Parts: sequence; structure tokens; C-alpha cells
Amino acid sequence: MSTSKIISFKTMHSPKGANASFTIGMEDNGGGFSVEKDYIPDQDVFIGYKDGKDIFCLPFYSSQKANASEKFVKKDNSNKQQFDANDSNDTNTNKKNDESKKTILSHKNYNRELQFATDKYTLGKMDYSIYTPVDGVPDPEICDNTIMKREVTPSVISVMSIDNRNGKLPLQCFFGVSPIKGKILLSEMTNDKLIGIYSLEGYGFAASSESTTVKEFGEFNILDFFNRKEIVSFQLAPIGGIYFWVPAGEIVTVDIALGFYKGEIVTGGVGQCKYFYTRYFKNIVEVLEYTLANKSYLINRAIEVDRKFSLCKINDDRKFIVSQSIRSYYASTMLFLENNKPRWVVNEGSYMMMNTFDLFVDHLYYELDNHPWLVLNTLKSFANKYSYEDTVHYYDEPEVSYPGGISFTHDQGVFNVFSREGYSTYEIKGQDGCFSYMTQEQLCNFVLCSALYVKKTGNKQWQRENQKLFSNCLTSMINRDHPLPEMRDGVMDLDSDRCGNQSEITTYDSLDHSLGQSRRNLYLAVKCWATYISLEYLLQNHDTKNAKIALNQAKLSASTISKAYNKDLGYIPAILDGKDKSAIIPAIEGLIYPYMLDLPLYLDENGVFGNLVTCLKKHMITILDKHLCLFDDGGWKLSANSVNSWVSKIFLCQYISKEILAIKKGNTSVNDMAHALWWKKGCPTNPGIDQIFAGNQELRNFHYPRAITSYLWIYEGLK
Amino acid sequence: MSTSKIISFKTMHSPKGANASFTIGMEDNGGGFSVEKDYIPDQDVFIGYKDGKDIFCLPFYSSQKANASEKFVKKDNSNKQQFDANDSNDTNTNKKNDESKKTILSHKNYNRELQFATDKYTLGKMDYSIYTPVDGVPDPEICDNTIMKREVTPSVISVMSIDNRNGKLPLQCFFGVSPIKGKILLSEMTNDKLIGIYSLEGYGFAASSESTTVKEFGEFNILDFFNRKEIVSFQLAPIGGIYFWVPAGEIVTVDIALGFYKGEIVTGGVGQCKYFYTRYFKNIVEVLEYTLANKSYLINRAIEVDRKFSLCKINDDRKFIVSQSIRSYYASTMLFLENNKPRWVVNEGSYMMMNTFDLFVDHLYYELDNHPWLVLNTLKSFANKYSYEDTVHYYDEPEVSYPGGISFTHDQGVFNVFSREGYSTYEIKGQDGCFSYMTQEQLCNFVLCSALYVKKTGNKQWQRENQKLFSNCLTSMINRDHPLPEMRDGVMDLDSDRCGNQSEITTYDSLDHSLGQSRRNLYLAVKCWATYISLEYLLQNHDTKNAKIALNQAKLSASTISKAYNKDLGYIPAILDGKDKSAIIPAIEGLIYPYMLDLPLYLDENGVFGNLVTCLKKHMITILDKHLCLFDDGGWKLSANSVNSWVSKIFLCQYISKEILAIKKGNTSVNDMAHALWWKKGCPTNPGIDQIFAGNQELRNFHYPRAITSYLWIYEGLK
Repeated sequence: MSTSKIISFKTMHSPKGANASFTIGMEDNGGGFSVEKDYIPDQDVFIGYKDGKDIFCLPFYSSQKANASEKFVKKDNSNKQQFDANDSNDTNTNKKNDESKKTILSHKNYNRELQFATDKYTLGKMDYSIYTPVDGVPDPEICDNTIMKREVTPSVISVMSIDNRNGKLPLQCFFGVSPIKGKILLSEMTNDKLIGIYSLEGYGFAASSESTTVKEFGEFNILDFFNRKEIVSFQLAPIGGIYFWVPAGEIVTVDIALGFYKGEIVTGGVGQCKYFYTRYFKNIVEVLEYTLANKSYLINRAIEVDRKFSLCKINDDRKFIVSQSIRSYYASTMLFLENNKPRWVVNEGSYMMMNTFDLFVDHLYYELDNHPWLVLNTLKSFANKYSYEDTVHYYDEPEVSYPGGISFTHDQGVFNVFSREGYSTYEIKGQDGCFSYMTQEQLCNFVLCSALYVKKTGNKQWQRENQKLFSNCLTSMINRDHPLPEMRDGVMDLDSDRCGNQSEITTYDSLDHSLGQSRRNLYLAVKCWATYISLEYLLQNHDTKNAKIALNQAKLSASTISKAYNKDLGYIPAILDGKDKSAIIPAIEGLIYPYMLDLPLYLDENGVFGNLVTCLKKHMITILDKHLCLFDDGGWKLSANSVNSWVSKIFLCQYISKEILAIKKGNTSVNDMAHALWWKKGCPTNPGIDQIFAGNQELRNFHYPRAITSYLWIYEGLK
Repeated sequence: MSTSKIISFKTMHSPKGANASFTIGMEDNGGGFSVEKDYIPDQDVFIGYKDGKDIFCLPFYSSQKANASEKFVKKDNSNKQQFDANDSNDTNTNKKNDESKKTILSHKNYNRELQFATDKYTLGKMDYSIYTPVDGVPDPEICDNTIMKREVTPSVISVMSIDNRNGKLPLQCFFGVSPIKGKILLSEMTNDKLIGIYSLEGYGFAASSESTTVKEFGEFNILDFFNRKEIVSFQLAPIGGIYFWVPAGEIVTVDIALGFYKGEIVTGGVGQCKYFYTRYFKNIVEVLEYTLANKSYLINRAIEVDRKFSLCKINDDRKFIVSQSIRSYYASTMLFLENNKPRWVVNEGSYMMMNTFDLFVDHLYYELDNHPWLVLNTLKSFANKYSYEDTVHYYDEPEVSYPGGISFTHDQGVFNVFSREGYSTYEIKGQDGCFSYMTQEQLCNFVLCSALYVKKTGNKQWQRENQKLFSNCLTSMINRDHPLPEMRDGVMDLDSDRCGNQSEITTYDSLDHSLGQSRRNLYLAVKCWATYISLEYLLQNHDTKNAKIALNQAKLSASTISKAYNKDLGYIPAILDGKDKSAIIPAIEGLIYPYMLDLPLYLDENGVFGNLVTCLKKHMITILDKHLCLFDDGGWKLSANSVNSWVSKIFLCQYISKEILAIKKGNTSVNDMAHALWWKKGCPTNPGIDQIFAGNQELRNFHYPRAITSYLWIYEGLK
């Protein structure tokens, strides 16, 4: 049982580090090219062929859109031509129209297979496949330039293949996009070396074939293309495309490179960056040319990745989720060149906040496995530019300040504008709820990411060089617990003075208050426990004194949290003091860190933290068994009190629940199908979307990178 | 009687040559900053002040827009705050809401005065004025750099003045725009040298005052700004603005520079250009700084222009039309730097075709008066890059080609992409109607523009150097009349082979067929007559033989057209052979050229062309008297058979009818009021819009430059 028969949903096909993608996949919906956009574009995409009088076209355009030439020609008698996405047979209804108006598009019985690296569509005699690079970015400081260039080329390769061996007539095949603003014919710019179209807005496509001649066309209306005696490449018209003929009795394959390019400085604020790929490419023509020249390598690599992925022992819905997640993650990535050095940024999806720390901490598992150097790049940028020192206070006594310490900003900027050093774009003073500071949480995140980075890479040098920073983090952690050593209980009680008279919040900002408040928050308390353990890990070889303090704090945390376990409820309430008795899933999030640090004794129910682990296990069993945190469809509900659920955190907690707590419930095909359906049926226009309301759709054309946590399901299997 | 009490319509405030504007003016409608856009943006613009609990804000925002922070915070209980654009008193309806939600915006009784160079708004204690440079661009090849810099600065200056002399409380004043993507605080980027906001998208504003401190703010919701204890400049939030305080008993004036900047190469295709202003400014910070430093000069010059304009003896509706037209014209202008030389482009409004020739010929009167060097710049680009040689054929015999000759392309590109040399983006082969070739018309246009340019500037050197070109134009004109000299009648009969088997069209492409077809078209025939006269003018000193041929052809034209006068109808039918008997106003367009060339004998009813002039006068009197070409409201109808009318051509023909044919009818305040109402009531969101359907609105947010023909009404008066 899976959702594999549902094939109508958008998928972003994204190169690495270019903040760009080519999106198609949902019926009666456009998509197309986007570069640095905070939405998914709604270009019409026409991919298909004409066989006699029948036109077969994949349904990735809006059939409701008016004929664009009406913008120029408004007449009393409307002369619209017909777009019928569903049925090509009912030509009787068109009897009153003249010959040309009988032309309609059809996509009956198309099929689709989304794999890890290949998204393949079949319609009649045509296959169309898009191959996406999904296997990391090498470290430019050590990687050979030839390889580096290939890995960061801002393009994806696609292939159209038409089998006309049984045909009696030549087939006319096409690939077109509309509207393209600032349209330029490649044939004109390259003296026919390349055939295709690019836009002054920074994207384009070029086609080549060994067995046929490819040509360009341009039209106001795709149907005009089929009705013209002599095909035109109308520059003014919004549609730009390529076409070619497949003779009867032949198979023809055409490679179509889909490329992106921004050559100028693309960031502002505190940082002037170009894209890293500008080191290798002067313009989009070079990108497209290079992509076509290297197509065999790109395609073969994708096929090899697909083969390995097919061996992973996870169900089809999980395969879909992982495949969709990785593509959406790369859609948000930007590899910059700043002062001739690489600078890595992941956008917060369509919100476009840069390097949001509470996303970074969840991207970690994928990133450490595929490009750990980027983790260090991001950690350094937080340590060097986006850290700050604060003082803290009790919420009820905002006028009395106590020592605080170092923490890190929520993000590093928004919409390609870097924020000033020491400040995020998200956090403001005096704000109740959303947009308040996340000082405690981001402090934890820095420590947790650092520990997992050191564990994964063995970069002892960096660890050694940053002992002072880690001990400062410890001090800052402790200062948020209690000003007096003897009163500490391992759990945060003081808010940063940066909040003004309001409270710190957590990454669960827009869920209910049970998860939003930081102080004595169960989710954050467990994360603080993991942070102390991570500090012990980071400090133990060079600073045993502080390492011991860290461990002691972890014990205090564990004890405090365990005591909060409510036997009557069968779980730990969301706020430890019991003011809020909600049941929440993310209580268990913190368990993943000792697991990834390979500290099994800390996760042993008979070990030093056995009581905590047992409580969390009971907590999780209860809330699943009692359906407190499950929707009716089997989808996970992060907080019993909210219909807002975030799939990235669900995938993460599913992994923890199964792998660490050995709970089978919640990791069945029913649960996975529910989550897959949220994406496929609930939000088919929003690839990788995180925030979902009771399985329902967000209205905007929106994407998000964090669902990459689903990579945890396969990260052992894909090596 | 005039429409001066109607003040709700959009006006574009545009620097010269920057393809940019700041648009406000219509109630419950946004506007804001646009740079290189094919639409008018719909940013909310908030300009006003808070007096106690009352907030007075000009109504240039959409009251229906949802609170932007909902994008981040979706909750079950909506927490929208209220925008009420009309009434601030009805707070009773808000009783259920909490204190902060009682805050509403009000703009009761605001007023507006649009002058030639100043657009002034008053609301309560506040004045806000935008001053627009409207007096031409100097020739950079001879102009001193200091002056040139000032004239092409991509900005406009505005001033907010608040009179709190009678107030008891300090007033909090604000200027904000939303959404601003890629928002950057000027204070951060300039170490507080400038205060304001700019966007990575290429626009911004900066404020300064001698008598108060200006600060920045940023918010999701404008009302939050008033409810916060400590004002924030929230980088993530879409609203960016400035605010300041006016103490009780004082008047405070704040200058706000509205600037634009694109530093990179902004064109593609056959031409790589930057904006000319990049020669003087490295970034938008320099633009804003310079604008504030030179504000006194800019404001005083605007006031002086307004003073002179106020002396022009035209009615208020014409003053409105001219003021609106000039601003919309400059919104479409682009002064580029290409290989260190200036290159001038006027976009075809929101269609963004570059240097559309059939617009250029109508911009001519304004351009020759205000920056004749640009006319030469454009003529040279057509002569050098956008001309071609064709062969011609009879429509009924497309397979037989005859010699044609030189002509010129419809345009030079679209959306900042220059088309390949010898080709426009608009014209394609084998097209019926719109988008076919305008070979005959653009040939006329080149000759007519050249003649008026030489007449205006006395540039005899250029005239002499181009004798061969002009005689080629003559040959090309004649070849389109008839292949055999003895069969010529001065009127076009052969279509360019570039059309394929279709017909050439005229600039009246989207009106009915009576004006669309070129062959034996009355409008074009009179224009050909004027072209022959212009060729005689251009050739007479150096090539008397061809000058005589030209004059002879003019006589043939005049005779043919006069013969077509239909006594029964009382006018000349739109197609000379009588196949189409429509009545059209643009028959008289051609008369303006001998008038501008100062050839009164050619316009004398007793002169060599007396018969033609008499016929055209009778034609015009008939169609006005019989209301054939008038709408019920008194507005002009270019063709009796179409409800589509173009105000630019109306203004031109009103001028010709009155000044050349001495017809008073059609030039009354009733007619002018009708046209003003088309803009103010019919299309208030579309400043300068040309194409209007029976006075009704175009649906898109759309603008156009050609209404600058209205300048003819004042071009004698404003020197």
C-alpha cells in the first residue's frame, strides 16, 4: 500500500548552490524556471509531440490562461484558441470554429516515475527525463577545479526520447516555456553553435541531438506553432521553445540542458557575493554548452545513484519523500564566492532567510554525510560574524540583569541581504511570540552542530582551536539555568535581555504556546541535556574540568526532566512546571545527539541517564498509543494542541522513535502514506513544504528545505 | 468646466532615462517603486502622521491586503488588524477588539494638486510634494559633466512638511513602503550618514531634515508601528520606512529622495549596455546622497517650471493631460552607456518594445524641443543597425517579386533585449494583421523624422552626409507605388516580401481593418505625400534631380487622394479604392509635417496641394459634424468603425485640426473633459495609457509614453 499511483505534484529540479530550479509535475499547473525567487513560478511548460492531427503534450501548463496575444490585440470578437487538457476526442464541440481552432492539446494516460535522481515522464511515444545531481558538493579548498566545476555547474540535464519506429508519419516534437521575459535566441548569440532560448532574467535551455536538427520557435500561443506554414521564432512573443522532427521508423533522442546564471554581485548588506560558479562560467551560454558536453557523465551518474537508492529497504512512500526532499533542499542552496572564498548559504525555502540556525541543525545529517565542509563553513560564519554576548533576566523581574554569555543569531540575513553582524533578520526586541529571540535554542544548536561535525569529520584541530569558544558556550548555558550554582537544575529559566520584557521562543514558533515558550520547555530541556553531553564531548580531551561541569549539568537536566514525568498522564507535560500539560512529540528530539556521537551508554535505560531515557520512551509510547499526537489519517501531530505539523520534525522524530527508542508504532506504512498524501494531495504545488495544517494545503506556491531530515531513513543504506 | 476635482488617479514620478518611477495617486491602490518593470507595482505606500490617537495617512495602499505576518504566523484565531481607508470615527464597531486593534488609518479630506513638475498632496497638517524633472536631457557629448550628472541622476526629490504650530502634542510622522524585498537599512550601510531604506531590487529612499532627527523603522503591519513601545527596524518584515517627530508649536520639513539604481549590464541580445548614470554614481547610496545635497536646486527648478506652465493658455484638463503625459513618457526612457557612448531608448510603455518607430515619430515634437540630440541618436541607430532592403510584390501575385528598397524595423528589441540587426521583435512573416510588417510606414517615419530633425536643428552636415540614404529612401518609396514609372500614382500598392503572403499593416494595427491595412490606406497615403515633401526638403540643396522626383510623387499622391474624396459621403473613405468606406480621423496626420517644416504654401488651399488640403478639411469637418468620429461624451473616435481609440493620436489630430485646418469643433473644453475623464475615471490605474475602449478601463496596471503628443498644445507656450 503506497501513494505511488498519485503522480500529479510539483517537483523542483535543482542544481547545487544556485538558488534555482526547474519545476514541473502537477497537472493543469505551470512551473518552469526560477532563479532567486520566493515562490515557484507559474510559467507554462509545453513538452510533447504532434502525430498527424493529434498533439500530445504533458499537462504542465494552466489551461485557463488567456491567449497572451490578447495583451496586444483586444478585439470585440474574442479569438481565443482552445486548451483542453483532458480530452482530445471531443472535437464535435468545436464544430463552429474554423480549422485552426480544432487543434487541441491532450495528455491522456501520461505516466511518471520519480526516483532519487531521475524524474521520468512518459506520454505515448515520448519519454522525458530530468536528471538531478543529488550527491553533495566537494570542498573547493581541496577539490580539483575540473571536478569542482562539474559539481557546481548551475544546470540540470534532461532528455527527450521519441520512439517512432512503428509510425507512418514524421512526428514534430517540442519543448517550450511561457512567458519568457527578455527572451534571447541562442542560435543568434552563438552563430548556431547552440540552439535554444535564454532569458535576461538568468535562465535558459539548449538542445542538441546526434540524429536530428533542432530549431527554435517563438509564439504567442502554442497552438499557432502547429498551424503555421513556416515556423517563426517570434522574439516579442512570450513562448520560447525548440522543436525537431522524428522520421517514421526512427528513434530520436534530444538532450536539453536547463541552465541558470547570475553573473553580478547578487547579495547586499554585510556581504558582497557572486555565485561560486562564476569562477568557472562567464555566462549562461558557457553553462549550457558545458552541460550538453558532459551529459553522458551526468546521466550515467544519476542512473547509478538511482540503482543504489533502489536497494534501500524503505517503502515507496518514504522513497518519494526522500526524493522530493533532497531536490527541495538543493533548490534553497547558494554557494557563493566572497573575497575569493566559498560561502555557503541555505535559504529558509521561500521565506529566504539565510542559514536559519534551527534549520541548519536539522540539515546536519544530510550535510555531514554529503558535504561536511559546508557544515564547518556555516559554523565558522556563526562563530565569527553571527554570535553575540547578552545578559539575562527572570521573566517576572525584567529590570534585574544577570550575566548571560555567548549565543548565536537565528539567521544571517534575508532575500540575499546579509544582516549586520551579531543580529538576525528574524529576532526583534519586545515581541510576544513569533519574531522574539531564540537565544537559548541557537546556543544549543551551535554546540550540537559542532559536536556532530567533530565526530563525523574527526577535525580535532578545529576542536582544539575552539576550546575557549566551547567553554564560553558552557558558561552561557549555565548562566541561563540559574545565577547561583547550588540552585541549578539543568533547565533554562532566564530569558535573554535582548527580548526586552518578552519571552524567548523556540523553533516551534508558530505552533501553540506549549512548544513556543523556551523557559522550562520540555523539548528545549531535552535539547539542553544533549547540549551538555555534547559539551562534555567537545571539552573532554583538553578541558576536563569544564567537561565534568558539563556532564554534571546534563545529569541535573536529566533528573529535572525525569521528575516532571506525570504518571497519571503517562507522559511529560510540554512545560515542565506543569502549567501547560500538552503532549508533544519533539520531547525526544534531543536523544539523537548522543546517538550520533556514538555514546550508547548515555542512551542505555540502565545507564547514567537511564531514567530520562525510560521516561521519554514511556512518554512517546503513551502519546502514540493514546492517539494524542496522531491525526486520524495516521499522520503525526507534533503537539496535541495544534493542527500545525512540520514534516521535517516528524521524519526526524520517526527516526529517533524507531532507531533509538525501538518503538515500532508510528513507523508503519500507514503513517508514511499519510505523510506522503499530505504532500501529494494536500500540498501538491508546494514541494518539500514543512508546515502543514491537518494535512491541508498552504495557499501559496511555496517550498522548504528542512524535510531533508528524511535522509536519516536511508543514510546508512546509501553509502 | 473641468475634471480638476477628480484627484484619484495614478501618476508616475520618473527620473530621466532610468526606466523607473515612483507611482502613487489613486485611492485604495498601491504603487510605489518600479525599475524595469512591465507593470506598475502594487506596493503599499504609507505617508502620514499620528496626532494623539488619530492616524492620518494618504490612501495609497490596498485596504484589502492581509496582514503580511500571516505568511509566517498562521493561527486558528485570526489576529488581523483593521485597515479602514474611509472613516476613523466608527470605532464602536471595534469594541470587541483589544486596544491595539482600535488603531485605524484615515485619510478624510485629503487634497491633491498635480502641476507640470509638482504633485502635491495635503492631508490635515501635512503637505507632501513630489518634484519631477520634466525638461529634457542635455547632449552628453557636449554637456559639462557636472550638469550632465545632475540631469540624469536616477531619482526624484520629495518633501514632507508638517505644520504643528497649533498643536498641543508632538506629531509622529512616517513614510513607509511595503513590501520591500531585499531590504537594507541605509543607516547600517553608511554609518548613519544617510537614513532610509533601499532594496536589492534597485530602488530606495533616504530622508534628511535640518530641524529634526529622522529614524528608520521596519514592520509586518503598519499599525504595529504605532503600538510598539520601542520602535524597531525589523529587517525581515516587508514594510520599510522612516519616521520623525514634530514638536508642538513647530513646522518641520523633511526631504525624501526617491532613488533607483542598476549598476550591472542590463541589456542582452545585440547590445550590452549599462545605464548612463553609472558613469557618475557607483551605487544607490551615492544617488540618494547627491539628490539630498542638491534638493534646493531641484525643487526651485520644478517651481519655476510650474510657474511658466501656469501661464500657458490651455484649459485645466489639457494641463492635466500634458502633466500626466510627460511623466509617463519619462517612465519609459532609458539612457544607456554602450562602449562609452550614449544610447537612447524609449520603451513602448509596459509592452517594453524598444524604440518602436511609430511611437518615435510621435514623440518627435517633444523630443526635438527638449533634447534633439536624442532624435539623432535614435535615427542613427535605425540607419546603422535597424534598416533592411527588401523586394516587393502585389498582394494577389505574391510569387512575383519587384525591386523594393530600404526600410526600417518596427522596433529595436523588447524587454532590454536588442533584436538582431535588420529585424524587429514585432514583425513576423506570414502573419495576418497584428505582428505583420510595417515596411512602408516605417520608411515614411524615417524620412519624416529626419526632415523635422534637420529643420529643427539645422544640422546641415548630417543632412549632407546622408544624401545617398535619403535618395535610397525615395527609390524605396517609389518602388512601393508601382514598378513602372508611368503607372505611379503616389500611393503604396506593393507589399514587402518580408510579409510572405500577407499584407503590410500600419501603426493602427489593433484597430479595425479600415486603418490596419497599408495598401491604398488613406492615413498612410497622406503620410506618403508628406514623406515625398520631406524628401524634397532633404534633397533639394544637393540632389535637385531627386528632389524634383520627390515633389512630383507628392503631386501624384495629392491628386490620387483628392480624387478619392466622396462627395456623397462628404469625406475620403479609409481605403482609397472605396472597398472600405469607413471614416477615419488620422487622414489628416500627414499635414503636420509640411507645417513643422515651415512650408505654408504646401498647406495653402490655393497652393500646389490646395485640392488635397481642401479635401482633408472637408473630410474632417464632415466626420466631426456628423458625429461619425465622436463618442457620445465628446471624446474622439479615431475610426468610425472601432471603439478602440488612442489618445496620443487624438491629441495630435486635435492639434492639426485646429492649428492647420483651423477647425474649432473638437477642440472645446467638452472634448478635453471627455479625454481627461477617460484617464481619470476610465483608466485611473494606467497613467498615460493610450489605447482606450469607449472610455473604459484596461484591466492591467499599464502605462504608455506616446500621449506626449499632448505637448503640442503647449510647445509654443513654454519656451
